[in-house]
Amino acid sequence: MTKERLYLFDTTLRDGAQTTGVEFSLEDKIAIARLLDGLGIDYVEGGYPGANVVDTAFFSEKRTENADFVAFGMTKRAGRSVENDPGIADLIGSSADAVCYVSKAWDHQVKLALGISTKENLKGLAESVQAARDAGKQAFVDCEHFFDGYKANRAYALDCVKTALDAGARWIVLCDTNGGTMPSEIEEIVADVLTIAPGDKLGIHAHDDTGQAVANSLAAVRAGVRQIQGTLNGLGERCGNANLVTLIPTLVLKPVFSQRFDTGVTAEKLETLTRVSRAFDEILNRGPNRQAPYVGASAFATKAGIHASAIAKDPTTYEHVVPESVGNERLIMVSQQAGKSNLLTTLKRFGIEMAKDDPRLDKLLRQVKEREARGYSYDGAEASFFMLAHKMLGTLPKFFDVTSYRSAIERRHNAKGEMVTVSEAVVKIDVEGEILMSVAEGNGPINALDLAMRKDLGKYSNRIDDLELVDFKVRILDGGTGAVTRVLIESRDDTGERWFTVGVSPNIIDASFEALYESFTYKLMKTA
Amino acid sequence: MTKERLYLFDTTLRDGAQTTGVEFSLEDKIAIARLLDGLGIDYVEGGYPGANVVDTAFFSEKRTENADFVAFGMTKRAGRSVENDPGIADLIGSSADAVCYVSKAWDHQVKLALGISTKENLKGLAESVQAARDAGKQAFVDCEHFFDGYKANRAYALDCVKTALDAGARWIVLCDTNGGTMPSEIEEIVADVLTIAPGDKLGIHAHDDTGQAVANSLAAVRAGVRQIQGTLNGLGERCGNANLVTLIPTLVLKPVFSQRFDTGVTAEKLETLTRVSRAFDEILNRGPNRQAPYVGASAFATKAGIHASAIAKDPTTYEHVVPESVGNERLIMVSQQAGKSNLLTTLKRFGIEMAKDDPRLDKLLRQVKEREARGYSYDGAEASFFMLAHKMLGTLPKFFDVTSYRSAIERRHNAKGEMVTVSEAVVKIDVEGEILMSVAEGNGPINALDLAMRKDLGKYSNRIDDLELVDFKVRILDGGTGAVTRVLIESRDDTGERWFTVGVSPNIIDASFEALYESFTYKLMKTA
Repeated sequence: MTKERLYLFDTTLRDGAQTTGVEFSLEDKIAIARLLDGLGIDYVEGGYPGANVVDTAFFSEKRTENADFVAFGMTKRAGRSVENDPGIADLIGSSADAVCYVSKAWDHQVKLALGISTKENLKGLAESVQAARDAGKQAFVDCEHFFDGYKANRAYALDCVKTALDAGARWIVLCDTNGGTMPSEIEEIVADVLTIAPGDKLGIHAHDDTGQAVANSLAAVRAGVRQIQGTLNGLGERCGNANLVTLIPTLVLKPVFSQRFDTGVTAEKLETLTRVSRAFDEILNRGPNRQAPYVGASAFATKAGIHASAIAKDPTTYEHVVPESVGNERLIMVSQQAGKSNLLTTLKRFGIEMAKDDPRLDKLLRQVKEREARGYSYDGAEASFFMLAHKMLGTLPKFFDVTSYRSAIERRHNAKGEMVTVSEAVVKIDVEGEILMSVAEGNGPINALDLAMRKDLGKYSNRIDDLELVDFKVRILDGGTGAVTRVLIESRDDTGERWFTVGVSPNIIDASFEALYESFTYKLMKTA
Repeated sequence: MTKERLYLFDTTLRDGAQTTGVEFSLEDKIAIARLLDGLGIDYVEGGYPGANVVDTAFFSEKRTENADFVAFGMTKRAGRSVENDPGIADLIGSSADAVCYVSKAWDHQVKLALGISTKENLKGLAESVQAARDAGKQAFVDCEHFFDGYKANRAYALDCVKTALDAGARWIVLCDTNGGTMPSEIEEIVADVLTIAPGDKLGIHAHDDTGQAVANSLAAVRAGVRQIQGTLNGLGERCGNANLVTLIPTLVLKPVFSQRFDTGVTAEKLETLTRVSRAFDEILNRGPNRQAPYVGASAFATKAGIHASAIAKDPTTYEHVVPESVGNERLIMVSQQAGKSNLLTTLKRFGIEMAKDDPRLDKLLRQVKEREARGYSYDGAEASFFMLAHKMLGTLPKFFDVTSYRSAIERRHNAKGEMVTVSEAVVKIDVEGEILMSVAEGNGPINALDLAMRKDLGKYSNRIDDLELVDFKVRILDGGTGAVTRVLIESRDDTGERWFTVGVSPNIIDASFEALYESFTYKLMKTA
């Protein structure tokens, strides 16, 4: 049986740019378009040419090789001919293969926000679609507020679809603009639209305001639409758009969809998905969501000992798909709840092979439990676990020793009478008999200590040049200022690897020092 | 028409504790149970008594007032009578109102993971349910792997449901343990289960591995189940459990559900939802998800100018529900209008009456927004807000001034050759012209500072005798060791009142000092 084709439309660069706190540079846009193109997305919507400098520059040349490159804009303004509309001119004059027009499909909104008649709106839509086609481009129509519009005035919402269809639009996209529609409503309404338009000309554009953008998109596909609009990692205004990174594996791997449909994402491309998702977060300069479906670092993680031993016997026990199919990996965490099989799997990942009945394994498990009871947490700090294992095995190298440190914070009035706070740290480091002393100021005691330690590590100095501390988390384990503190440090280097180390002490500076020291040691071990 | 009752079951403290990096202390568990109880959740599952020290202590007394308190555990072990099973004894001996047993419903898993016959599994299930009922407790059964089990062996999966039902279980919960089931499959399978069990004895337990835990839960309700299991903010193993914070507003506000069903969450309680969600993140010591449906800071945020002006004309344009109904607020990036009424309410609570058109209110609002942009958070620190208001009004008394402080941390070998860390703080305090110097050692620099400040406050000393710091939270707002730090301090005194103060600085000691100073001042103001 031949499968039907399902088309993927990405709007990260247009609707995704509406996200609070997100602003793409031209370079960002070029990099993101390349990621999408490589993944096998069919349509890449790049923005709104003419609306701002970046978007206009972005549309000065075609930015995709395989995907169709799409420009977004408004339909013709009222009271102006299509030939004399500068917005339309920007769209059809751009390097885009297709133009996607936004057109309101809710009569109330047409009158309220546009202040024109519903008839004028339809006329502008038809002429705009025609103008794109005359320029040799495909025309798409995003029917804004389609589902709310349908509920308020079914006839007008359907008229919009019919007008776009008759004018020759390639795709008519039904938008749940407010994101409040339920999957069951989507199914019912799409079924009705299918009575006037074929499914292979219909698309769905969902928002996540009830946490159902993915389910709404899939419900629309089940009902008959053949194009899905979404964004990388669910970026988008308010709660975001439908997350393509979540939708794609479901479409490709789940039999209810994969037996009926083909997409542009091959099995081989699917294996790059985790990398694409994380590269995108890297461009946004934010940490990836550990809990993200399919691609999150925790998506195939197991913490409970009983679950871990069951997975060792049969991975399908707690894994709904094979992690490698989306370029992710299984993660058996080490923690208080862990059993021996968690430890073995983790050790193996770090290149340490041990037999299941090796008595050292019991010793290591006891040490992990004993240290976690004192406040350590190894499920979030595997580099520290790696070092604990090496220590127990007697294979942990000692690159350097901090024989003493001193950190001082002083808050006082300066000569100008202003209140200032100064933090200074002094470290004494022994590198194989060579004693090195360094001092540094920082904007806090821990920053000062970090800077002083990096200042001179003797012969190892050049090996930590690219070591960067990217995150620093402090958890007070119980009680007030006298309580035990756990510090978790995330580090990164130029290879792109990220590692986590942990320190615990009643003294926050000491806990930070311990995590810093282990991060430095891990970096030196990996470059040994 | 009378509505049907839908029951909400929270498993944050049990399944949520499986989340990578999450570990609850006893105090955390007590605080979370209180949040859930206040929200109107029907069942609060607290953990696994007997499995670890924290859970055993947590079940030593009943921790909810309105909700049923539920203990989780395994059914009877094979080869042992129910009377001689220590696990069962821990469950029925606990202070729980109900016992929730986990029981495998997939024959393959019974043989593989448990190594017992499918018959033995059913026998253990029936006897365990009976044991809970004999002890005067309700019995619930989580059918683990129910949907995968049903696909592999329908008869056995249904036998499990039937066995639990016949043994007198109050609820039989269908679990999508791997999280890979689609909403359409959930609907079909639940419809089949309804041929042997009534919907008001069935529950759904969904995981978010395809981003559809919320949709799967709602699909099950549409098909007929009447209990939903989930967690606060979707905490849970791998990609998390169904997010109750997302589900609740949909059930209460969306007509397709609200016209048919009642839950324990009243309209009034729903207005506390945003606060509950954020308080929970505060306990987890993590930043709230801005994009979270309903409760995220961006859930009702608008960035695009055209959207903002449309919202000004008619909020329903881009808002699917009223933000205030869930205790959230509209956020228009261009003109920050929101918040004035919140301020008035909070001021009134602290005994400061102000008219709505008082120009000082605008000034205060500007100050709050400006300080929040720098990292302060007054949501969680109302005592600091109270002081900010008094400062602006010129009514903040100055009891004492810390003219300077110095804090030093030294790590070195002591005379015995042991590595020790010593923290010492020196403060110079001006109490109405009297200069007092004190020095103290502590187990960390902040504890030392706290102790030195308390040592001598001159004539105010006796008024802070019963001031106790009960919690201290540190949040790094972004980046590595050089980032901005927010410190939140919780204080208490003999009257039982608890208050929260906040400090922000790139220097953790300075941020802590600010929060400490405000806590002391608040205590002196209330005893003035």
